[in-house]
Amino acid sequence: MKLLKDRIRKDGKIKEGNVLKVDSFLNHQMDVNLFHEIGKEFKRRFEGEEINKILTIEASGIGIACVVAEVFNVPVVFAKKTQTKNIAGDVYTTKVESFTHSRVYDIIVAKEFLGKDDKVLIIDDFLANGKALEGLAQLIEDSGATLIGAGIVIEKGFQIGGDLIRSRGIHLESLAIVDSMDEKTGEILFRD
Amino acid sequence: MKLLKDRIRKDGKIKEGNVLKVDSFLNHQMDVNLFHEIGKEFKRRFEGEEINKILTIEASGIGIACVVAEVFNVPVVFAKKTQTKNIAGDVYTTKVESFTHSRVYDIIVAKEFLGKDDKVLIIDDFLANGKALEGLAQLIEDSGATLIGAGIVIEKGFQIGGDLIRSRGIHLESLAIVDSMDEKTGEILFRD
Repeated sequence: MKLLKDRIRKDGKIKEGNVLKVDSFLNHQMDVNLFHEIGKEFKRRFEGEEINKILTIEASGIGIACVVAEVFNVPVVFAKKTQTKNIAGDVYTTKVESFTHSRVYDIIVAKEFLGKDDKVLIIDDFLANGKALEGLAQLIEDSGATLIGAGIVIEKGFQIGGDLIRSRGIHLESLAIVDSMDEKTGEILFRD
Repeated sequence: MKLLKDRIRKDGKIKEGNVLKVDSFLNHQMDVNLFHEIGKEFKRRFEGEEINKILTIEASGIGIACVVAEVFNVPVVFAKKTQTKNIAGDVYTTKVESFTHSRVYDIIVAKEFLGKDDKVLIIDDFLANGKALEGLAQLIEDSGATLIGAGIVIEKGFQIGGDLIRSRGIHLESLAIVDSMDEKTGEILFRD
């Protein structure tokens, strides 16, 4: 998606440790007009698929998911992150390992909002190691819902998440795949 | 806002301890078409005000804020909640006391995304004790930005937040003010 790649080149900041900061438009300050264009692009890429729910994960996925959901005209459910020891029985839950924060947390979705009639598109801002995405896919499987695919705004193509998800046969669409980035020159190389 | 009050009556669940659960359409599963109507209503109520940024707080405020921001055609910034001890210097930060989770947390906004040229509308899902809203107002003040007002989806009129915020002269618009609710009968009394 050219508009997105241009924006990443213009406003993205490369930090030590292969960190790509896009918090001026994607995940702290949020450009909702860009999100709308992102929604239209996902709609195009998942054309012909029956989708009746979008699933995302707090916090930075929520804004994108909601604007994308308007384009699809479906509701959003977001998985909550929790470190609460005692989780009530009426939820689907799984563990997710966070590399960014080097800890393990539980993600939960109330059972009443995910079930066998749901045909689910996962939406998230980033795909790196794929742990969050695997967790969401697990919740969908546990609920008996159907996973239609996953729409990711930025995939870090040099980390294993993309390969992992694609090798499981999940229809993954990433709007910008970063194959490499250079902290010193500021250069970002996108796939294809 | 009649559409919202009807929805709360239809799908809201009253739980022990004056808890109003609206997680089937507002803050776990999210009805983005309703959010769009909410956005149009806020636009009407803040007509004539110059607003160039929406500020909200993670997590459940983000979805509503983004859809509302599309109607206003402005970007969103969300304050992050953190319990991190060492916060980098380039942020505005203040402490917020959470009654729901009985703990104190820090909220932060990067300095580059809030400043003197910003005319800010705060958007959030709930107003109860007003602590989150006061925290957001504090960040705006610290940054030199102008607080235009606050748009709240559901105000618990029997808690002190609304009075607190109005007594400070802040233009507060709550789309549904719950004056009382009865766990046994399921009856909800809205203001006016």
